[in-house]
Amino acid sequence: MISDPVRLGVAGLGRGFMLTLPSLRSDPHAALVACAAPREESRTAFVAEFGGKAYATVNELAQDPNVEAVYIATPHQMHREHADAVASGGKHLLVEKPLAISMDDADAIVESAARAGLHLITGPSHSFDQPVLLAREMVASGKFGAVRMIHAFNYTDFLYRPRRPEELDTAQGGGVVFSQAVHQIDIVRLLMGVRATRVVAMTGAWDAARQTEGAYSAVIEFEGGRFASLTYSGYAHYDSDVLQDGISELGLEKVPATYGRSRKALSRLTSPADEPKLKSGRTYGATDAPSPAPHAEHFGPMIVSCDRADLRLTPKGVEIWGDFEKKFVAAPPDPAPRSPVLRALYEAVRNGRPPTQSAGWGRASLEVCHAILEAARAGRFVDLKKQ
Amino acid sequence: MISDPVRLGVAGLGRGFMLTLPSLRSDPHAALVACAAPREESRTAFVAEFGGKAYATVNELAQDPNVEAVYIATPHQMHREHADAVASGGKHLLVEKPLAISMDDADAIVESAARAGLHLITGPSHSFDQPVLLAREMVASGKFGAVRMIHAFNYTDFLYRPRRPEELDTAQGGGVVFSQAVHQIDIVRLLMGVRATRVVAMTGAWDAARQTEGAYSAVIEFEGGRFASLTYSGYAHYDSDVLQDGISELGLEKVPATYGRSRKALSRLTSPADEPKLKSGRTYGATDAPSPAPHAEHFGPMIVSCDRADLRLTPKGVEIWGDFEKKFVAAPPDPAPRSPVLRALYEAVRNGRPPTQSAGWGRASLEVCHAILEAARAGRFVDLKKQ
Ligand SMILES: NC(=O)c1ccc[n+]([C@@H]2O[C@H](COP(=O)([O-])OP(=O)(O)OC[C@H]3O[C@@H](n4cnc5c(N)ncnc54)[C@H](O)[C@@H]3O)[C@@H](O)[C@H]2O)c1
Ligand SMILES: NC(=O)c1ccc[n+]([C@@H]2O[C@H](COP(=O)([O-])OP(=O)(O)OC[C@H]3O[C@@H](n4cnc5c(N)ncnc54)[C@H](O)[C@@H]3O)[C@@H](O)[C@H]2O)c1
Repeated sequence: MISDPVRLGVAGLGRGFMLTLPSLRSDPHAALVACAAPREESRTAFVAEFGGKAYATVNELAQDPNVEAVYIATPHQMHREHADAVASGGKHLLVEKPLAISMDDADAIVESAARAGLHLITGPSHSFDQPVLLAREMVASGKFGAVRMIHAFNYTDFLYRPRRPEELDTAQGGGVVFSQAVHQIDIVRLLMGVRATRVVAMTGAWDAARQTEGAYSAVIEFEGGRFASLTYSGYAHYDSDVLQDGISELGLEKVPATYGRSRKALSRLTSPADEPKLKSGRTYGATDAPSPAPHAEHFGPMIVSCDRADLRLTPKGVEIWGDFEKKFVAAPPDPAPRSPVLRALYEAVRNGRPPTQSAGWGRASLEVCHAILEAARAGRFVDLKKQ
Repeated sequence: MISDPVRLGVAGLGRGFMLTLPSLRSDPHAALVACAAPREESRTAFVAEFGGKAYATVNELAQDPNVEAVYIATPHQMHREHADAVASGGKHLLVEKPLAISMDDADAIVESAARAGLHLITGPSHSFDQPVLLAREMVASGKFGAVRMIHAFNYTDFLYRPRRPEELDTAQGGGVVFSQAVHQIDIVRLLMGVRATRVVAMTGAWDAARQTEGAYSAVIEFEGGRFASLTYSGYAHYDSDVLQDGISELGLEKVPATYGRSRKALSRLTSPADEPKLKSGRTYGATDAPSPAPHAEHFGPMIVSCDRADLRLTPKGVEIWGDFEKKFVAAPPDPAPRSPVLRALYEAVRNGRPPTQSAGWGRASLEVCHAILEAARAGRFVDLKKQ
């Protein structure tokens, strides 16, 4: 249907890329034409699947005249350097969440994209999930009045998936706040539709062997007395996908027999050095991407309380719990779960209509992540200044 | 089985009493022998059902030599006066939650029971629900390590059930914080097992026609860096009982066809004065008590995160989500949902073994209610002093 897909380069063929790959394969808005990856194995696989060019560095990728936009899917700490390189090459940017680790880096990224007059989308992020976008339209219609309170929680195995060492060190951007809270924050900010003002939170780091935040509860205040409460645990015990039609974060049907799988895989390792290897064993060229997902992605149960209805987001759509009636609206079908972010990229690059999730948006969500950590550390409210 | 049930008087034959009545009818630990009620209709019905004495005032009831303990089920604002009267008569006390409205009244109640050497149980409260007590035993066993985080939420129609005017006025003890938060607080305090230290919260009052708190999110800090997040909405939209096996707060199977019932009933009223009448139409002597409940009562979904497992409370028992295995432990069967509180009364009166939920306990939970209101009003952390 799309005659002029965005010619996309990708920097980093790791886990983040693997999760977007099924959508890239089936959605027509973007076409992969080049990559940058340090591992030869990944580069070879890339050329075999997509043709095009495979570079060893992001600098080279950024100079490829055939590339219009680059999807930066390298580790958080490299986002700034890689965004700078890509912006210097004059390509639009799709930068994985979180936009960066430090606010300084985020500022720099916002500036270099703006200076070069390029579109920067912070994503993929679960704020692009179809049911979230559907709920946002419902809110925007005004039919249900103002959003007053949002309640979000998510219980996953995040902390026990195989990790690089820095992913377990908060100072280096590790832990659930930078990688997971940022999704919840994106979603509640999008649905709330007004500015967040303050944050208060408690965090938990209970596993001596993995000393970074694995859980938190936060309350975010928004303008006009609105508020959101966010709770997350990545300790691989309760799994809130049971409340989400048994559908995983990635939109796949969950198999109950796999209970405890993440901890089991880790417990089979004989040395700590094996863990990063286990992680890179899950990247492009080393194994298959997840199967195409039959459902939308999601980030845990979420209830959006408006004046005249509560909207309950599910992986299949939105339940409307009104004053006198309850109904369900299915999310519109898409070729793939991550179609909306690819469509957003297309709209930005081809039609000059960027989505809400800009560089400044990503920075604002990152600020809330820092506020959660600071609020928990200092035991006080933290005011937000970059929203 | 019990040859010497506690001879119980009851003060107030309203809604609270009606909800305890099915349990009083079927549990052998207490026998109703007298009541105090201003309405003749209720007194007549009481004598017809239970025999015994029916008084117009609590003072008279408190002097009845046949009465060993009095269940105070009058409106919050009368608890102090009625507790004083009952303590003067030398009877043990079972006082409905919240123990009182003001902390001064709570102090006075704690003192008058202590001075007279009487047992005072703050209850019924959902901290006596069988799955809560089962989870508490599991926690106490030490098998799962320390409790680190508790997450509780509940979405009900509380604000739209028929109300007396003071129940919609926070200054007079109205709103969801005094009547509903107190249950969540009781449960999380019991399961946490250590002292609460500080509270932060946001509240919502979104219906101009019912200007009291209908919703809140709170984070309670406990000793040792533990924390609980509590969210509640009584706005009669989303109903979290769908996550509780479709079982109501009272342990009854929920009928989906009744969606919107509370708002519908209110919308049929032609004058505000009809609302208290609608409420008293639901009291003893005017209508039947709810049917005996086949399940335990509950107060919404609750996930208790410990070092080595998450415990998910359901109306049927406790799901244990461990490191490598998941299992379900059913709550022990009881003659009725409120058996544990009646058994606790018996243990206190007959065997001198009072439960945790004492007068001081009730005061501590009330302090958290005030802290929620104050934290939300002032936008700051509130330190707790009476825990
Ligand atoms: N949106 C999502 O669902 C999602 C999921 C996972 C990860 N992510 C994000 O993706 C990013 C990467 O995380 P990950 O889990 O994929 O890590 P990863 O380690 O699996 O992947 C990173 C990849 O970058 C490559 N790389 C390292 N240095 C490079 C360089 N100089 N040039 C080019 N490539 C380089 C590595 O070889 C690796 O393949 C993070 O920001 C993370 O938050 C997002
Ligand atoms: N644990 C629960 O599940 C639960 C449920 C509902 C109410 N309650 C508690 O029960 C208490 C009463 O609330 P309610 O909803 O039953 O109110 P209600 O108005 O239905 O009942 C109060 C009753 O007290 C009677 N009364 C008033 N003045 C009296 C007096 N001087 N002497 C004797 N009786 C008097 C009234 O006639 C009425 O029947 C409150 O503290 C409330 O929090 C508990």
